[in-house]
Amino acid sequence: MAVADQVQALTFDVFGTVVDWRSGVEREAGETAKARGIELDVGAFAAQWRSLYDPAMEEVRAGRRPWTKLDDLHRESLDALVPKFGLESLSEDELQRLNTCWHRLDPWPDSVPGLTRLRAKYILVTLSNGNVRLMVDMAKRAGLPWDAVLGAEVTQRYKPLPEAYTMTAELLNVRPEQCMMVAAHPRDLDAAAAQGFRTAYIHRPYEYPRRPPNEVPPGRYDYTVNDMVELAAALGC
Amino acid sequence: MAVADQVQALTFDVFGTVVDWRSGVEREAGETAKARGIELDVGAFAAQWRSLYDPAMEEVRAGRRPWTKLDDLHRESLDALVPKFGLESLSEDELQRLNTCWHRLDPWPDSVPGLTRLRAKYILVTLSNGNVRLMVDMAKRAGLPWDAVLGAEVTQRYKPLPEAYTMTAELLNVRPEQCMMVAAHPRDLDAAAAQGFRTAYIHRPYEYPRRPPNEVPPGRYDYTVNDMVELAAALGC
Repeated sequence: MAVADQVQALTFDVFGTVVDWRSGVEREAGETAKARGIELDVGAFAAQWRSLYDPAMEEVRAGRRPWTKLDDLHRESLDALVPKFGLESLSEDELQRLNTCWHRLDPWPDSVPGLTRLRAKYILVTLSNGNVRLMVDMAKRAGLPWDAVLGAEVTQRYKPLPEAYTMTAELLNVRPEQCMMVAAHPRDLDAAAAQGFRTAYIHRPYEYPRRPPNEVPPGRYDYTVNDMVELAAALGC
Repeated sequence: MAVADQVQALTFDVFGTVVDWRSGVEREAGETAKARGIELDVGAFAAQWRSLYDPAMEEVRAGRRPWTKLDDLHRESLDALVPKFGLESLSEDELQRLNTCWHRLDPWPDSVPGLTRLRAKYILVTLSNGNVRLMVDMAKRAGLPWDAVLGAEVTQRYKPLPEAYTMTAELLNVRPEQCMMVAAHPRDLDAAAAQGFRTAYIHRPYEYPRRPPNEVPPGRYDYTVNDMVELAAALGC
């Protein structure tokens, strides 16, 4: 049977793959700073906030701290950036609001049209390190047509821990090879493949515009596409 | 602040409250039996299958057996009914198919219109004892507009255990009083209220047509309505 017909569920990475975190964080940080008359290098701010993401999760993955949801890790990282970027005059309400800018990210232009086509054939679920409320708020605002919000908070495991993938498949009553991980990040796809998931790589050159594009050897993933509409076409949707 | 404005999320019981399990189970059991030339009392069959639901969950709630998803509990109950109803000639494929009839239940006629209105103002999530795949299949087929599928399997707690409610609120980043449990069953609402949830009781007289209607004293629940559209109107949607 063709891979596209073996698969029942598509599991999605979200930050960078479905939504554009960089421009969303830059926009809200810029608006917040401007309202207080602060000059802010929004590019550096967004990049540094995002760069604190993985080390913060690693403490949880390694078992050095108990489960902590991404909203709370984001807040700790934000608090660390306040003195570095001269944001001390922001109020607690403004900081709380800025911290939830991750709930209000815009999808890439192809995401909603592609997901809508894919949903007619497959179960679509998030398998993101974002917490449930973050994913719910984002989906409501952006119109992302998920069938369920699963992933890190539901499994209490941050990717790329194996159980983040295997427990998600178990919740969907499917074997790993009946799931396909969709992501713009080789690390995520490789971890999913190690648990038996099928894989689809999406090129997202604007996530890290200054980095050289990811090298994706032909045949490394089941599908390699440029956007979500192309994935829908490749899977016969 | 009015209750309707304090609440951010509506958490729904599903079997009986949103969908009509009785007619759906009767229909599929009848079709399955007829195809094999078996005479089946579908009313008695559906009622007995459903009546085995709570004792099966109680074994898990009480800690006498490890977490077992509802699809598997349903299958054990079905296997127990096979000899009682003369269904021994059904094949394994037919039994598996019949067991998933719970994934293909129809909504009450007001459910989709009411939920669609409610969703514009609130986060709508399932807080059912049904497992994730069951809820996903049902929602895709029936067009139920959930923002997330939460509840028993995600929390690994069957209602009415307190953690089924409190862990669901935690996943939504809200306090219990910012959630409203919507159900046709006093036991579920009372357990939710004991954890601080707001409550909405929906009369569903056709779930148990031979039983006298539930007595709902005025003021016992925050809202008492006859259907989901009436709930939407009561909550200002």
